[in-house]
Amino acid sequence: MKQIAVVGLGLIGGSMAWALRGFEDYEVVGVVRREETAQYALEHGICDRVVLDGDEVLPEADVTFLCMNPTGILDYMKAKKDLFHPGALVTDVCGIKTAIMEGAKVLPDSVDFIGCHPMAGRESSGIEHCEKEMFHGAHFLLTPRETSTPEHVALMERIGSYIGCRDVVKTTPENHDNIIAYTSQIMHIMAVSICDDPLLFKCGGFEGNSFRDVTRVAALDVELWTELFHLNAPALCRIIDRLETTLRQYRQAIEFEDTERLQERLIYDSDRKRRMNEQYPLMLLK
Amino acid sequence: MKQIAVVGLGLIGGSMAWALRGFEDYEVVGVVRREETAQYALEHGICDRVVLDGDEVLPEADVTFLCMNPTGILDYMKAKKDLFHPGALVTDVCGIKTAIMEGAKVLPDSVDFIGCHPMAGRESSGIEHCEKEMFHGAHFLLTPRETSTPEHVALMERIGSYIGCRDVVKTTPENHDNIIAYTSQIMHIMAVSICDDPLLFKCGGFEGNSFRDVTRVAALDVELWTELFHLNAPALCRIIDRLETTLRQYRQAIEFEDTERLQERLIYDSDRKRRMNEQYPLMLLK
Repeated sequence: MKQIAVVGLGLIGGSMAWALRGFEDYEVVGVVRREETAQYALEHGICDRVVLDGDEVLPEADVTFLCMNPTGILDYMKAKKDLFHPGALVTDVCGIKTAIMEGAKVLPDSVDFIGCHPMAGRESSGIEHCEKEMFHGAHFLLTPRETSTPEHVALMERIGSYIGCRDVVKTTPENHDNIIAYTSQIMHIMAVSICDDPLLFKCGGFEGNSFRDVTRVAALDVELWTELFHLNAPALCRIIDRLETTLRQYRQAIEFEDTERLQERLIYDSDRKRRMNEQYPLMLLK
Repeated sequence: MKQIAVVGLGLIGGSMAWALRGFEDYEVVGVVRREETAQYALEHGICDRVVLDGDEVLPEADVTFLCMNPTGILDYMKAKKDLFHPGALVTDVCGIKTAIMEGAKVLPDSVDFIGCHPMAGRESSGIEHCEKEMFHGAHFLLTPRETSTPEHVALMERIGSYIGCRDVVKTTPENHDNIIAYTSQIMHIMAVSICDDPLLFKCGGFEGNSFRDVTRVAALDVELWTELFHLNAPALCRIIDRLETTLRQYRQAIEFEDTERLQERLIYDSDRKRRMNEQYPLMLLK
């Protein structure tokens, strides 16, 4: 039987292991640090098997999913690089890709690395929040190396499909990080920024769906997101910069009672959104 | 039989009329300008009766819901002020309250006005999108006058309950507008601002739930929102100002790789969100 090692059974790693169970002829082996996590994973059937020491399973693993925080992944690859067998595939689930692909260069040439980012998450972390159906309907983003084998790319595509992703999108690490700064990172920055406002604790009873929706992701995993923002700083700063500029223009049009200018901008932006809805109707579906 | 006149059968007016049907011993009479709207309302059972001329029904109406855009409401009150009978109650459904309450002073002293804002909406406008259950689970915000009769306030409370609102919140127009700038207006400004970014049409395939959620309201009714922003300019500008400051601080921490400062801010803001979730668990439910 072939083996998939899933290193780190947090929210995403646990969900990935769970979703992977039964995939083709692979045994899913969880690698965790804490005895309680191992216990929980076994009791809930999240993996076929759990080990506390990666060294036991990595040499046998055909595929290894690294599911820690970004720096945890980088450190782990450095420390374990000589354990993987030739022809093995290493991958990850991390929300940034350039730094990870760069770090993966530490692996021997005989070991393939394909960056992976299943676009799903929750506002809570830890194995006790993981879900077998976490990835249903999510985009499965892949950043293969130029040297990645077609067999490995095809294997990742079958995995994306098996865990329930809506599609597989292949791109470069740079493009991934640039776009993710826009579709995901800035949404988290806006959510926490809104929660910074003194009115937060005075607004109960006055909230509608837009408030619920925008602030939902603010209860984020601080260590994880500090790393994700930090490791994607240039792209993220460009987006924040542009958002600041647009917000200032809106504020000025409102402040100076320039209703014509305000209306023009609203026509332009709401029309862009309407066109996007038409162009990508599936984008609206959760 | 008593009468409720609903003036303007757009998304909210149509939904209000529909939701009000069968309320106590009231007949629900729609007032519209266009023959097609009247036809649509009758065919879909949105009102008990529809008239094209408000002058026919306002003198008889015990309650009149004004459901046009803000300036439409202000103009209508000026034009029709002498038609209401003494003891009649006039109300509205508009997303700002100070300007409306101010404008309502044009009504004779014998006519009561209670500001009303059911916090619900959709990203589309017009009677063809109205829903009988539009207000289910929404907050029903009321800004009574100091001189409003207890009977009228109680009547509005029964209406809020009948149309399915989760609760009735009474407040001053100033407090309403200040808080709504935060919970609703800034969410719309952020949504359109995000859609202003050049990456909008390049991000298909890379979006997750946070992107869908934040941008959802961007396809807004431009004329309506131009008025809502314009008539709440001071409160809204204060919030945008504070958001700009917070965003800039986040950008600087990220740009200067000040991960300690970034982490501190994320701890502070995400903790506020977690405390709010605990304090207002119902706020999370749609």
